[in-house]
Amino acid sequence: MERPRVVILGAGFGGLMAAKSLSRANVRVTLIDRQNYHLFQPLLYQVATATLSPADIAVPIRSILRDQANADVILGSVVAVDRIGRTVTLDDGRSLPYDYLIVATGARHAYFGHDDWEPVAPGLKKIDDATEIRRRILLAFEKAEAATDENERKALLTFVIIGGGPTGVEMAGAISELANKALMRDFRRIDPASARVILIEAGPRLLPAFPEQLSATTKSSLEKMGVEVRLGAAATRCTRDGVERGGEWIAARTIVWAAGVEASPAAKWLGLEGDRAGRVAVGPDLTLAGDPRVFVIGDTAAVAWRDGKLVPGIAPAAKQMGIYAARAIEATIAGKSVKPFRYSHQGNLATIGRRSAVIDFGRIRMTGPIAWLVWGAAHIFFLIGFRNRIMVMLHWMWAYVTFRQGVRLITGSTSLP
Amino acid sequence: MERPRVVILGAGFGGLMAAKSLSRANVRVTLIDRQNYHLFQPLLYQVATATLSPADIAVPIRSILRDQANADVILGSVVAVDRIGRTVTLDDGRSLPYDYLIVATGARHAYFGHDDWEPVAPGLKKIDDATEIRRRILLAFEKAEAATDENERKALLTFVIIGGGPTGVEMAGAISELANKALMRDFRRIDPASARVILIEAGPRLLPAFPEQLSATTKSSLEKMGVEVRLGAAATRCTRDGVERGGEWIAARTIVWAAGVEASPAAKWLGLEGDRAGRVAVGPDLTLAGDPRVFVIGDTAAVAWRDGKLVPGIAPAAKQMGIYAARAIEATIAGKSVKPFRYSHQGNLATIGRRSAVIDFGRIRMTGPIAWLVWGAAHIFFLIGFRNRIMVMLHWMWAYVTFRQGVRLITGSTSLP
Repeated sequence: MERPRVVILGAGFGGLMAAKSLSRANVRVTLIDRQNYHLFQPLLYQVATATLSPADIAVPIRSILRDQANADVILGSVVAVDRIGRTVTLDDGRSLPYDYLIVATGARHAYFGHDDWEPVAPGLKKIDDATEIRRRILLAFEKAEAATDENERKALLTFVIIGGGPTGVEMAGAISELANKALMRDFRRIDPASARVILIEAGPRLLPAFPEQLSATTKSSLEKMGVEVRLGAAATRCTRDGVERGGEWIAARTIVWAAGVEASPAAKWLGLEGDRAGRVAVGPDLTLAGDPRVFVIGDTAAVAWRDGKLVPGIAPAAKQMGIYAARAIEATIAGKSVKPFRYSHQGNLATIGRRSAVIDFGRIRMTGPIAWLVWGAAHIFFLIGFRNRIMVMLHWMWAYVTFRQGVRLITGSTSLP
Repeated sequence: MERPRVVILGAGFGGLMAAKSLSRANVRVTLIDRQNYHLFQPLLYQVATATLSPADIAVPIRSILRDQANADVILGSVVAVDRIGRTVTLDDGRSLPYDYLIVATGARHAYFGHDDWEPVAPGLKKIDDATEIRRRILLAFEKAEAATDENERKALLTFVIIGGGPTGVEMAGAISELANKALMRDFRRIDPASARVILIEAGPRLLPAFPEQLSATTKSSLEKMGVEVRLGAAATRCTRDGVERGGEWIAARTIVWAAGVEASPAAKWLGLEGDRAGRVAVGPDLTLAGDPRVFVIGDTAAVAWRDGKLVPGIAPAAKQMGIYAARAIEATIAGKSVKPFRYSHQGNLATIGRRSAVIDFGRIRMTGPIAWLVWGAAHIFFLIGFRNRIMVMLHWMWAYVTFRQGVRLITGSTSLP
């Protein structure tokens, strides 16, 4: 009898963990991703703000799975899933049969009906997004140094981040430090420290997934660093010249979008309706209703949790679902029954600049330098690849000791949009 | 009296060295470059072959000169030089007056009348070139893994390097190692070691600037690594499907151009005729005939050396000219006379893969592992920035010990041209 074929779509935290968890199972695993690398997304903002290089947080998928004999890696994009014939079709026309399918294609940033904002307010999900945002931030300082018009110079030195979740908070802190520390003596005409960093959040507080007290600490920490935090009103207009919010016009040439994500088009491939954020509803065993061969996990899945909330779209949740799906497939093949998925929430972390972080481990809550050390240790620990851990640690130590960020390269075009 | 203005075009080895050498001079220095970083070009092939990240060999120019109070850095492209009015015009319309001008804009790859070859056979001069070549090499292996047609697979696994100078030799060695070592167990359908690496040189031997004996050693070292060396006939056609050479058609989907360079368009800006390779002829004091305020240095200049030859287009020569131009300007301002430039040739180095190099220091000639260590030490020593030295050493040690190359990221598009 042929071994069952498990096809996994997406090599993010969920998909990769599913593949690795099947290493000893008597199945053939095919892992498909649009990129040739697994990306450690939680540190992507440090690529966008010139502390890390792309290679520090990205590892070739083939190299992770090179010794897993039952796993095969394919670079390709999914265009369709045939759930009756049980095949996946790729963009190069290839059709791959599956016995079990794990959909783990993640999320992308969403503009909630304002797709025209994307060119002026890029989001941060992929490596190319990060190098593009890095390019825009660094170019804004260069153009400000060259500007002769005072208003133009001010707009070039104004950086608006839309969205007060972890990514928005981390970007605001990092841009503020870049301006105040790393670039300090680099320019002759402008003072980089005069740059304004404005963080806009539509809701009443930053980090809505954290306890209120930590939101307040985060706000005051950012304000101490010079970040202007604007709560309680959403951006109503974004153009290449600035952002409108609550009737106020903020002239700014650099806008970063961190306000929301929507699931990848998995619902469409599966012939289903997604929820408002495009997520696919799954049962307690993470499979589709009436189709126990198809698992949907990670940011793509809408999984009930507690108090009417869904399991959050964070890396540990995706990994747990990946492990669960692998175990469930093994059990099913062995003819055993499968217990429902149970999400174990470890906590929330976010960093604010180079010396502070907020941590919510339920009973344990921390802010300040100790929290920052815990945050750093956790991220180093979960980085894949010994090499990457060493490199990231060295880059951080270097940036910490010298206040410099080493990766201040403007690659690609040297004109602003 | 206002301090004289020295405008330097280009922050390569020559221009940067000129700027630094003027640090204590009573002048105002303006250094203009199209990029915001100084690039250590001798190691660019290691970015193209996935050993180093761009940030390892590139340092922001502002950060190099941040403490040099008399120096100002401008990100911009030159479009014209007015030698009568003594101004330089930039692409953003700015016009900069100069008292002394140092033109150090380097060279770019040249296709000698075959500009249509550029899209299929990219050269290696800039960071974006290197990440593009890296993308093509890695994608070729991915596409070969997916290919169903045997001829297509063979063409995808054939890598042609055109040009047998140091860059061509280094690229051929590095691609061969990537295929034979780093990718060894990464694929399931193809054997990366079955890849063919073909190095084409129109002349009778590799490394024509080296003694004949070292050329022969280089050829046999490359052949031992599995590289096919084809001498004595130039490529006559390059398409996306392959290369024609001496009547033979080589089906190949990846072609790298290392066959020649021409000077940047400095001759045009200066209103002069360049030589065949676009270089500007200068006198023994590196200035233009009849215009002692304009220096041309580095790869842009045609400077007589010995035996009717020109000073070679290598980093040490550019640096020596940069120092000379700075000293000459200081002497001229002080009303002193200026001795002619004298090039001091230290030697030639090239590496062949991870354990061998060829070195020609005139009386001392070396090949093999010791030469490789000398090559590595020299390159680490001349890298700018303490951080970069450490990082490059660590990446090399990692690659050496594990046989892996860490930067195997396909960024940008995932389709081949």
